[in-house]
Amino acid sequence: MIRDKCGVFGIYGSRNAGSLTYLGLYALQHRGQESAGIVTAENGHFHSRLGMGLVNEVFASKTDIDPLKGYLAIGHNRYSTAGSSSVDNIQPLVIKFSRGDMALAHNGNITNYKQVKKELEKSGSIFRTSSDTEVILHLLAKSRKKRMELALAEALSKIVGAYSLVLLTPKQLVAARDPSGVRPLALGRRRSTWVVASETCAFDMIGAKYVRDVNPGEIIVINGNGLRSFDILKPSRHAFCIFEFIYFSRPDSLIYGMNVDKVRRRLGRQLAIEHPVKADIVISVPDSSNTAALGFSEASGIRYDIGFIRNHYVGRTFIQPEQKIRDLDVRKKFNVVRGVVDKKKVVIVDDSLVRGTTSKKLVTMLREAGAKEVHLRLSSPPITSPCFYGIDMPTKKELIASSKSVESIRRFLKADSVGYLSLQGMLELPALPPDEFCTACFTGKYPIKLFR
Amino acid sequence: MIRDKCGVFGIYGSRNAGSLTYLGLYALQHRGQESAGIVTAENGHFHSRLGMGLVNEVFASKTDIDPLKGYLAIGHNRYSTAGSSSVDNIQPLVIKFSRGDMALAHNGNITNYKQVKKELEKSGSIFRTSSDTEVILHLLAKSRKKRMELALAEALSKIVGAYSLVLLTPKQLVAARDPSGVRPLALGRRRSTWVVASETCAFDMIGAKYVRDVNPGEIIVINGNGLRSFDILKPSRHAFCIFEFIYFSRPDSLIYGMNVDKVRRRLGRQLAIEHPVKADIVISVPDSSNTAALGFSEASGIRYDIGFIRNHYVGRTFIQPEQKIRDLDVRKKFNVVRGVVDKKKVVIVDDSLVRGTTSKKLVTMLREAGAKEVHLRLSSPPITSPCFYGIDMPTKKELIASSKSVESIRRFLKADSVGYLSLQGMLELPALPPDEFCTACFTGKYPIKLFR
Amino acid sequence: MIRDKCGVFGIYGSRNAGSLTYLGLYALQHRGQESAGIVTAENGHFHSRLGMGLVNEVFASKTDIDPLKGYLAIGHNRYSTAGSSSVDNIQPLVIKFSRGDMALAHNGNITNYKQVKKELEKSGSIFRTSSDTEVILHLLAKSRKKRMELALAEALSKIVGAYSLVLLTPKQLVAARDPSGVRPLALGRRRSTWVVASETCAFDMIGAKYVRDVNPGEIIVINGNGLRSFDILKPSRHAFCIFEFIYFSRPDSLIYGMNVDKVRRRLGRQLAIEHPVKADIVISVPDSSNTAALGFSEASGIRYDIGFIRNHYVGRTFIQPEQKIRDLDVRKKFNVVRGVVDKKKVVIVDDSLVRGTTSKKLVTMLREAGAKEVHLRLSSPPITSPCFYGIDMPTKKELIASSKSVESIRRFLKADSVGYLSLQGMLELPALPPDEFCTACFTGKYPIKLFR
Amino acid sequence: MIRDKCGVFGIYGSRNAGSLTYLGLYALQHRGQESAGIVTAENGHFHSRLGMGLVNEVFASKTDIDPLKGYLAIGHNRYSTAGSSSVDNIQPLVIKFSRGDMALAHNGNITNYKQVKKELEKSGSIFRTSSDTEVILHLLAKSRKKRMELALAEALSKIVGAYSLVLLTPKQLVAARDPSGVRPLALGRRRSTWVVASETCAFDMIGAKYVRDVNPGEIIVINGNGLRSFDILKPSRHAFCIFEFIYFSRPDSLIYGMNVDKVRRRLGRQLAIEHPVKADIVISVPDSSNTAALGFSEASGIRYDIGFIRNHYVGRTFIQPEQKIRDLDVRKKFNVVRGVVDKKKVVIVDDSLVRGTTSKKLVTMLREAGAKEVHLRLSSPPITSPCFYGIDMPTKKELIASSKSVESIRRFLKADSVGYLSLQGMLELPALPPDEFCTACFTGKYPIKLFR
Repeated sequence: MIRDKCGVFGIYGSRNAGSLTYLGLYALQHRGQESAGIVTAENGHFHSRLGMGLVNEVFASKTDIDPLKGYLAIGHNRYSTAGSSSVDNIQPLVIKFSRGDMALAHNGNITNYKQVKKELEKSGSIFRTSSDTEVILHLLAKSRKKRMELALAEALSKIVGAYSLVLLTPKQLVAARDPSGVRPLALGRRRSTWVVASETCAFDMIGAKYVRDVNPGEIIVINGNGLRSFDILKPSRHAFCIFEFIYFSRPDSLIYGMNVDKVRRRLGRQLAIEHPVKADIVISVPDSSNTAALGFSEASGIRYDIGFIRNHYVGRTFIQPEQKIRDLDVRKKFNVVRGVVDKKKVVIVDDSLVRGTTSKKLVTMLREAGAKEVHLRLSSPPITSPCFYGIDMPTKKELIASSKSVESIRRFLKADSVGYLSLQGMLELPALPPDEFCTACFTGKYPIKLFR
Repeated sequence: MIRDKCGVFGIYGSRNAGSLTYLGLYALQHRGQESAGIVTAENGHFHSRLGMGLVNEVFASKTDIDPLKGYLAIGHNRYSTAGSSSVDNIQPLVIKFSRGDMALAHNGNITNYKQVKKELEKSGSIFRTSSDTEVILHLLAKSRKKRMELALAEALSKIVGAYSLVLLTPKQLVAARDPSGVRPLALGRRRSTWVVASETCAFDMIGAKYVRDVNPGEIIVINGNGLRSFDILKPSRHAFCIFEFIYFSRPDSLIYGMNVDKVRRRLGRQLAIEHPVKADIVISVPDSSNTAALGFSEASGIRYDIGFIRNHYVGRTFIQPEQKIRDLDVRKKFNVVRGVVDKKKVVIVDDSLVRGTTSKKLVTMLREAGAKEVHLRLSSPPITSPCFYGIDMPTKKELIASSKSVESIRRFLKADSVGYLSLQGMLELPALPPDEFCTACFTGKYPIKLFR
Repeated sequence: MIRDKCGVFGIYGSRNAGSLTYLGLYALQHRGQESAGIVTAENGHFHSRLGMGLVNEVFASKTDIDPLKGYLAIGHNRYSTAGSSSVDNIQPLVIKFSRGDMALAHNGNITNYKQVKKELEKSGSIFRTSSDTEVILHLLAKSRKKRMELALAEALSKIVGAYSLVLLTPKQLVAARDPSGVRPLALGRRRSTWVVASETCAFDMIGAKYVRDVNPGEIIVINGNGLRSFDILKPSRHAFCIFEFIYFSRPDSLIYGMNVDKVRRRLGRQLAIEHPVKADIVISVPDSSNTAALGFSEASGIRYDIGFIRNHYVGRTFIQPEQKIRDLDVRKKFNVVRGVVDKKKVVIVDDSLVRGTTSKKLVTMLREAGAKEVHLRLSSPPITSPCFYGIDMPTKKELIASSKSVESIRRFLKADSVGYLSLQGMLELPALPPDEFCTACFTGKYPIKLFR
Repeated sequence: MIRDKCGVFGIYGSRNAGSLTYLGLYALQHRGQESAGIVTAENGHFHSRLGMGLVNEVFASKTDIDPLKGYLAIGHNRYSTAGSSSVDNIQPLVIKFSRGDMALAHNGNITNYKQVKKELEKSGSIFRTSSDTEVILHLLAKSRKKRMELALAEALSKIVGAYSLVLLTPKQLVAARDPSGVRPLALGRRRSTWVVASETCAFDMIGAKYVRDVNPGEIIVINGNGLRSFDILKPSRHAFCIFEFIYFSRPDSLIYGMNVDKVRRRLGRQLAIEHPVKADIVISVPDSSNTAALGFSEASGIRYDIGFIRNHYVGRTFIQPEQKIRDLDVRKKFNVVRGVVDKKKVVIVDDSLVRGTTSKKLVTMLREAGAKEVHLRLSSPPITSPCFYGIDMPTKKELIASSKSVESIRRFLKADSVGYLSLQGMLELPALPPDEFCTACFTGKYPIKLFR
């Protein structure tokens, strides 16, 4: 089974629905680089193009986009998970069934996927993909309800997990978000055109305005009669993914209605308060921790500087020469600016620590470039438990903080000090009640039932 | 819905099952050039590679074949039908369901496809392809029978039509042929390895020997316990496709246990007897009517010669220059050998006449090259009705013989005479009772029920 | 250095010069499959497209052809010689020099290439390709003559060897053939458009008529003033390549003004007279010896039949499975029609014997299919010496007839008898004096000086 | 003629010369994205691979690198100049001539290219490329000097312009820099291996240490006898390109022996001193002006923030939907972080202003996101004259500062204020005498003769 970290996009009511979806996926590229796909509906028929690679590889010329005619469309960016990548799993999934044609794009993870799949197989369902997304379509096919929202509610009532999804029929666009609201999904508008997207940066790209989030448990149906909202899924405790603030979303997006940038900066400020240090400069690991590092700098008064240059031309393929050049996997991506760190006490702010191997190499590179001291500060608490709600993470065993104390982590990294943001410190910063967030990866308390 | 004219191949018991399937598909290439695919089973898992194009394009290097490990495999060549070609329809189809993994390759056409599909959709089945092959998998998924042969028999009992199919599970190879035996399927052996293929030329390629045909209505299951045959489908009147002899199969194959070459030559001899003509040379339209033309030459005593050179480099793409060069579509494929036909009375033997447009151009080319007379002889009767059992043909309206007399056909073609082989003459020549053949395309009498 | 076996094409005076060149190369595809290229001239500029592969691969869509605007053009098909194939060597070669832009396409081989190249390098010339064609351009660049024909004559006066070439400037098309006329070059016309091509089948393709051959030693310049012919190269003994008749050209072409088909049939008839045999059937190795086999059948009265089916889908790549299937390299291309040869005494006619390895396998395949006797007949004399005038052949050592007697060849091939056409028999058949042909590959008498 | 903005790399003495060159080009990718190429020398032969695209596209798998065996190598990244990009112009250029094989990679621009080319053509030279680099090879081919350094000096004595070049023969690596030293070229060492590269970030990548710059006018020859330096070119006034500091080089490189990062920060500081402003935040246009913006922030005391998010997935192709979305060309690359700039007085620091169109759109985007004031600060003086020494720039007419005053530029950009760094301010900051720099693009005083 494949865990998704993806971007979804849907649009209704523009005669360039296909091109605008392309632009939306472009802006959501950071959420998934393995594959991309667009399905549009025109006069009762679907047009689609799906492929492995980045948006600008799958849609490399006008001839790739031009056939995608129609007033409504959905699109999907898929994350690359080593080994399980496959042409069959590219989304949107497109099928034909009793309701006619349908396409579905999904961000999240269904935790009772195996159980539901087994049930479905017993009743004669056959599966083409190894993706959990396919069970939603099967459940929908089994529903006897005529109205789309009722059928979808019936299908979703049988699955447990995190999902933000967009669904296309020849005539309507449907969006839905799980009752816990784990993964984000925003609703926007551009004149008379409705759009939904994983992040609002996709709205900025096409000149649409953020209206509100699709609510946890909400089903939205958009068609010739306009937009209707249905609140028919059984409500649940909210469990917004806090990792979207820490690392995953783009800083220029609104997530759960808040500026990612602002929250991320507060994380940095709080980190400086919790783990002060005497140092000459604060640097980030570009680009994901830039904002947190700025926050750290502000609160600590230590000068922010650019200590690492990131090579943005790093592609999917990188050929490691036979001869061992130490740490080339990190070095190909980051180079130290020697003039900045030489003879300096350096604070390096990163967003989180997973395995710790990259950070270890960065610490070494800083020391080799002359840094006198290297202090690592992390703008999130220790990650001790893997995510089962749609973020791809290594197993518990591989998570360095699941078995090591902060001091042993420090020794492993060869850093002068290591400081993690506290759970409480983290939870106070967004403008939402702490108990509306999912903190499973930090606490091991999984708010949505797991099925193993 | 898509009508298939395809080649299938299956193998059990060789550690190079994948490579041997590749070779088998190579030999069956003439049965389908749109796509090719191979699925192998190894240690309970499938390996597969499927792609658009010729076998040597889909399998272009060792790295395409090497991953296809395992002792059992199936493969498929698909015919190119304009407009309906699609990546989704590439076979073998691979699915996961209650029985585990399964792959299926199919040659033929299910006539009650739409009816069965509607039924299945009602019960919640979803479809990924526009191919009739997928319904077989759904029916199989619905069966409660535990034993494969019983489940498959149950599934096949619900469909009507022509099919020769091979099916792969992680542990066994299954082959089945419809009770009428419309499409061919042969069983061969290579030491302890069993093979099945649409034509025996695939056996020659890998050094296997022809054992016998898979019988009409037979299900064969090959696994660790050896080969078992099941005769559990409801028997039916035989309806072997006689067109396999006329045009479709390779002359070096055995079809229904007979040498295609020999039957084809007899067709040519009989044609000469039925439609004698005074002429200087007999020529063929290479390569499909070479053998029939030789037969005509023998029986008539008229010298066989090579009047057309075929350009074998013609690919899928051919760019027509804006400026009209007359009949370039035919000319790119055939050039007259002027020295052969100049000032000669020419008999041109072709296997059949569909729309008549190509033949008309060939007649014109011969005249322009100096032929004094051009007599067209066809080694099959007038085609008046389309095939619904797996050969792609134009609609009845487009079939020239459906509405025109032989004399008006002659006038249309601007030939000096046109002679068709008689139905009776054709049916006497293979060593099988005439009533065991399907002659629907010549007579409009469809032996298997059609559903429209 | 690379030996060429290529096809050239040139055209002046049609507004579709580019597309017509594409069609011409299409018809000449059998002369070279490694690469293809077209250069057109329009308003003083060149447009070009060159690539590795077949004509229909290099020109795979209208967007590949459409930019090739202009009223004059040249094109080239290159033969694949293992190891020396390279993007740099694709023709036409395009350069800029004191005369402006120029493009050149060449069929043949310059025997004093190394000597001339060394001279040129001494004077400061630099080389981009490993092709002998480039020296012609350098010599042209060195000439002080203003008129093209004089400059070209001066350049050609310094080289020795076989060449048929077409040359393009922004305003004119130039064609030239070496004084011995080793390689063919024909001149054709299509209304007011002039064309030149290696073989006349290229004229048939575009509806042009054969006018005459470009004469040995002739330089033809075609521009706004029409066609002018220059006879300014030092004359030489003629040395037409007889192998063009035996194997190389298409049977529907005129070569040196004669029907290839007719000459090739006479070779087969003469072979039957020189080497009679008692047998049941005569078969060919399709398609190259079809015509000779027909001739043999006519003269001997032995029935012609189709004993081998050739697989025309064999591409450049063929993946040999690890497990040895005997003779797969031949078997992938040819399959025996068992029903034809079983229990028969078979005469197999082939055009020539180079290494003998393929023939040996064909003989074995026939015996395995039940042939009682196998008699090999070759429509050319023993090849004892390699060609240095533009046909790629193995070294003398590898040529089986260079060291073995006919009897030892027979034993090597395991044939019941082997018969070669005699030199005298061969030379009598074309309608040209025997001493106007090059017979070096049969006699070792090289009519044009070799430089080693 | 093509103006180059490129990266060059050379290496002598490692058995992984090819792979290390690949890594070096990887680090120099920012200097040229149109094409990449590597040539290695092994046992007297060259191996090469050249292609259009990024380094990780041209070298996409180990099979692309593995054949590049040998102890010495050179490589080249080429800049994409619209319209003139061509396969023929990919470097290194590889030729054969009297000295044997040679490969050349070049960064810079030869100003008397046309004059020299005309001379060469007169003497019979032929050209394959439209690149100025080819004349160097022709001049080298004409030299009678036996020793490489003397021959190269003779060739270079005939050309005028800016060049940093690396040259490979089967046995030696040669590097040379023009007497004015316009373009950078650094010498590094990695144990016994010598390397040269356009920027030192390429040394960091492979673990080599910076030794010194190749001096203006120096020729370095490295072979089995070690490294020898020759100072035989006629000396000239130094004219180091100051734009390498402002924009072109990576901040982690040493250029002319100075940290780019440090100089760039000083430019920002000086800019704040020269053009103070009352504002809430300082933002950069990522990533090129990050360092200068930090300097501005430090000197002004105004808080540095991240106002724009750059989409690093922007590829070469971007499909503009038919429907006009305003400023999409800029928006696809940059999105405003609304939360950062809303209701703020913003200083935006950029490195330079060429046409001004992008800046204008950025100013608008800031205002639309709520910025109260937008002040543009440029860390270089007004660009009034195009570069003819190797940086691709628009014509004088298109340079906004060539015709407009600062005030009219401000009005065009709709900014609240615009401030350019002064020429004197800029020149004081690097640790080199001001008169050793080329300032032609700011002053129109071209230190090296131009030929038009």
